[in-house]
Order: sequence, then C-alpha cells, then structure tokens
Amino acid sequence: CRRRLLNGQVRIMENTVANAEKYFGQFCTLMAAYTRKTAKLRDKSDLLVKQLIDYANTENPELRSTMKSFAEELAKVQDYRQAEVRSCPDRVERLETKVVEPLKRYGTQFKQTQIKRVNKVRNNEIKQLEKLERLRQKSPSDRHTIAESNVHKASIDASRTTQQLEETIDEFQKQKLKDIQKIFLDFVTIEMVFHAKALEVYSSAFQNLDSYDLERDMEVGGFEPHRSTETLVWPLIKSTPPREDVPRIKPMQRQLRVHIAEGLPRVWPGQYRDG
Amino acid sequence: CRRRLLNGQVRIMENTVANAEKYFGQFCTLMAAYTRKTAKLRDKSDLLVKQLIDYANTENPELRSTMKSFAEELAKVQDYRQAEVRSCPDRVERLETKVVEPLKRYGTQFKQTQIKRVNKVRNNEIKQLEKLERLRQKSPSDRHTIAESNVHKASIDASRTTQQLEETIDEFQKQKLKDIQKIFLDFVTIEMVFHAKALEVYSSAFQNLDSYDLERDMEVGGFEPHRSTETLVWPLIKSTPPREDVPRIKPMQRQLRVHIAEGLPRVWPGQYRDG
Repeated sequence: CRRRLLNGQVRIMENTVANAEKYFGQFCTLMAAYTRKTAKLRDKSDLLVKQLIDYANTENPELRSTMKSFAEELAKVQDYRQAEVRSCPDRVERLETKVVEPLKRYGTQFKQTQIKRVNKVRNNEIKQLEKLERLRQKSPSDRHTIAESNVHKASIDASRTTQQLEETIDEFQKQKLKDIQKIFLDFVTIEMVFHAKALEVYSSAFQNLDSYDLERDMEVGGFEPHRSTETLVWPLIKSTPPREDVPRIKPMQRQLRVHIAEGLPRVWPGQYRDG
Repeated sequence: CRRRLLNGQVRIMENTVANAEKYFGQFCTLMAAYTRKTAKLRDKSDLLVKQLIDYANTENPELRSTMKSFAEELAKVQDYRQAEVRSCPDRVERLETKVVEPLKRYGTQFKQTQIKRVNKVRNNEIKQLEKLERLRQKSPSDRHTIAESNVHKASIDASRTTQQLEETIDEFQKQKLKDIQKIFLDFVTIEMVFHAKALEVYSSAFQNLDSYDLERDMEVGGFEPHRSTETLVWPLIKSTPPREDVPRIKPMQRQLRVHIAEGLPRVWPGQYRDG
C-alpha cells in the first residue's frame, strides 16, 4: 500500500514536470511569435522613417525640417543604440536572449533528464525489493532472519532513492518558479524600457509636429515645386513676398491640445509626479 | 512666351498634386501595414493572456494568483475598453480611422478632380485665344480693332481661369499641409496614449511579479499536482506544514532593481517629476 502511494507520488511528480514542459513550450512558441511580430512592426517603422525623409525632401522648408525631425524621432523609438552611449541590443534582440531562449531550454527536456535518471534507479531498487520480499515469504524459518534483513536493507535503499527523487523534483520545482518569475520580469522590463522610451520620444515628436507653421510655408509660394522641375520656380507667378510681420496663426494647436487632453485623462506623463 | 511660362506653372502644379498623391498613397500603404502588424502583435498578446491563465490554474496558490494578476495587467495593455468608463475604440481601430482612412482619401484622387476641371476650362480658353490671335493677324485693317478686342477679352478670361487654377491649387496645398500635420499628430497621439497606458500597466505588473513569494509556494509542498491528478495530494508525503513565521526572502528583488536601474537611465517614470 505504501509503495502504491509512492508510485502515485512519482506519477504526480512526472506530471508536474511534463506540465511545466508543456506550458513553457507553449510560452516559448508564443513569445517567439510575439518577438517576430515586434520585429515586423519595427521594420514597418523603419520604412516609414525612410519614406518620411524622402517626402520631406520634396516639400517646403518648414514642412521639410518638421518631417525630417519627425522621422529622426521615429527612428529613436525603435533603436536604442542611437540614444545610448554604449552599444546595446535592441528590443527584439533583448526579447530573444532574455525571454525566448530561457523558455526554449525547458523544451529541450534538459531538466527532466536528472529526474528520469533517479527514477530509473528507484524503479530498479523497487523491483529488487519485490524480489527479496517474495524470497522472504518462501524462505524456510532458519533463513528467515537473513531474508528479512535483506528486505529491510533494500527497503532503506529504495526509501533513500525516493527521497533523492523528491529532492530532485523539489529542486526542479524551485528552479522553475524562479525561472518563470525571472523570465516574465525580464519581459516586463524590456517592454517597460521600450514603452518609456517611446513615450518620451513621441512627446517630443508631438511638440515638434504641433509647432509646424503652415502659414510660413504658404507665404513662400503655396508649394515647393517637385525637385525634378526645380528650374521653374512657383514664386515667379506669386506677387506676395514672404512677410515676416505676419503673426503666426496656429488654429490647429488649440484644437489638438483639447483632443489630446481628452485622449489622455489618466495616462499623461504628469501623473507620474505622484507615482 | 508668357503662355509657355503659364503652361510651365501648370505642369509644376500638376507635379505637386501628383507628388502628394504618390507620397500619401505610400504613407497609406505603410500605415495600413503598420496597423496590421500592430493588430497581429495585439493578437499574440491576447493569446499570451489566455495561456497565462491556463497555466496559472495548474500552479500553487501564490504563483496562481501572481500569474492571474499578470495576465489581467497584460490584457489591459491592449484593451482600452476595460480601463475606460465609456466604450472607446482600441489602438488598432483608432489607427485605422484616424490615420489610414484620411491617407486613403488622397489615393482616390478626390482632390485632383477640381484641379483637372479648372485646368480643362483653361486649356479650352487658351485654344480659343490662339484661334482669335490667328484671326486678328489675318484680319483686314477695318476689322482689326474688333479682332483685337476679342483677343483682349479672351486673354482676360484665360487669365481669370489661370488665377482660379492657382487658387484651387493653393487651397489644395493648404489643405494638404493641414492634413499631413493632423494625420501625423493623430498618429503620435494614438501611439502616445498606448505607450503611456502600457508603461503604467507594466509598472504595476512588475511590482506584482516582483512581490511573488516563491518560498511560500515551496512550503506548501514544492509543487501543486496537475489538476487531473488532484485526488493525490503532494503534501501527503511532505511533513512540514506551511509556516507563517518564516520571513519572506526575496533575493531577486534587489538584483532586479539594479538591473532595471541600469536599463532605464533616462526614461524612468521618475524623470517626469521635473518634466
């Protein structure tokens, strides 16, 4: 009866290990997919940066400088390297090394090997114990004490190995709990660094875009000719010279501030003042 | 000579419009791709949330509650609706309606129609002017004054239409500059709201994960049996009862704080105190 209980325990242990492998495997697959999608989003941002610079070069001075600054800010969102002094891996690389790789290690059943090895030793010892038990029951009374002593010795061996198995699984379990905490803390940290950086950069990009002075570009001729036709200059048929005394009217500014204020009731950087 | 100059101007105008269409079309394609990748990343996050809850249900009480809270936080990153009182569209929907759709309108050549219409009128008027000019040169001296008057009248018409064309293109150009500012400001606003929300939620998720007490889970038996074998309970073979007097040791906490401090030299929420 005690052995059946022990076997039940071993089955539970094995289930626990298999369960960890299953979920860590799924997390690994998902995190790898998350990282790939992140990389694809980053690639689209990179394309947008390139296209903004291309477009900026075809526009009037004010919009040109606004769009170029905007493109530079966007590039910073994805790329830590430009902002940091030392070279450091970007978000995608960090997700791969700090999240996907550690999860992958569970999939390779590395941890289960030690458990399997101890369990095999234990199973052999139990078989030996059963054999000795049968011998003891069949043994004549003069050899009964020796047989009983053998059974007792084998029983101690099996118990010791069972305890070793318990300890091995305890160790596995402890390591697993530590690892899952570490891996998800790393994930959250990587994402936090990214979002904080993005928020900082977009705040600056917003101010830059918001201060774009459309009137100034309209004053120099309504539009800049496309570069391929630069020899024919639009201001030729426009009589009004650029007037520096015209007040800079920005009707969109107020409207957008209200819009922003509505969109950010709880998450505006200011809130961190109390955080 | 003046007409050739005017024709040159019209060509520049047409180039400007075509240029805007080209770049707005490219921005539209790119932003649509960016939005799709964002949606895919959101879908992966949703899957991760589901899997975390599944996994949590197979774990010991402390890790179970930690993982469930973590899953709930992750869900908040992607979904504004849970956090806001009124129902409001999520990031992907906002990107589609505020960025992709307005850009798409330029692709449909809606703006160019008005310009083409005015240009067509102008071309007809110029042909008429050329015809009258030829008539004037051939006309006998007694009809010369009438012919000259006709040319003059037609010339005024053509000039007026040219001016109208200029105004139409000016209007187009002004609207375009306004639109590009508005669209990219909306883009930045949507992304800022998302990143601010994400940063807020991940900060909370970090604290939650960081306070996970592994020792407490180990005390109740090293591991929780898989649900399918719940009748066989691991604590049966563990003699130590849960000890409330054991101090909660969190060796990872310090290490991770240092790690975080290294990773966030410039962008930590604390910096907004002075911002």
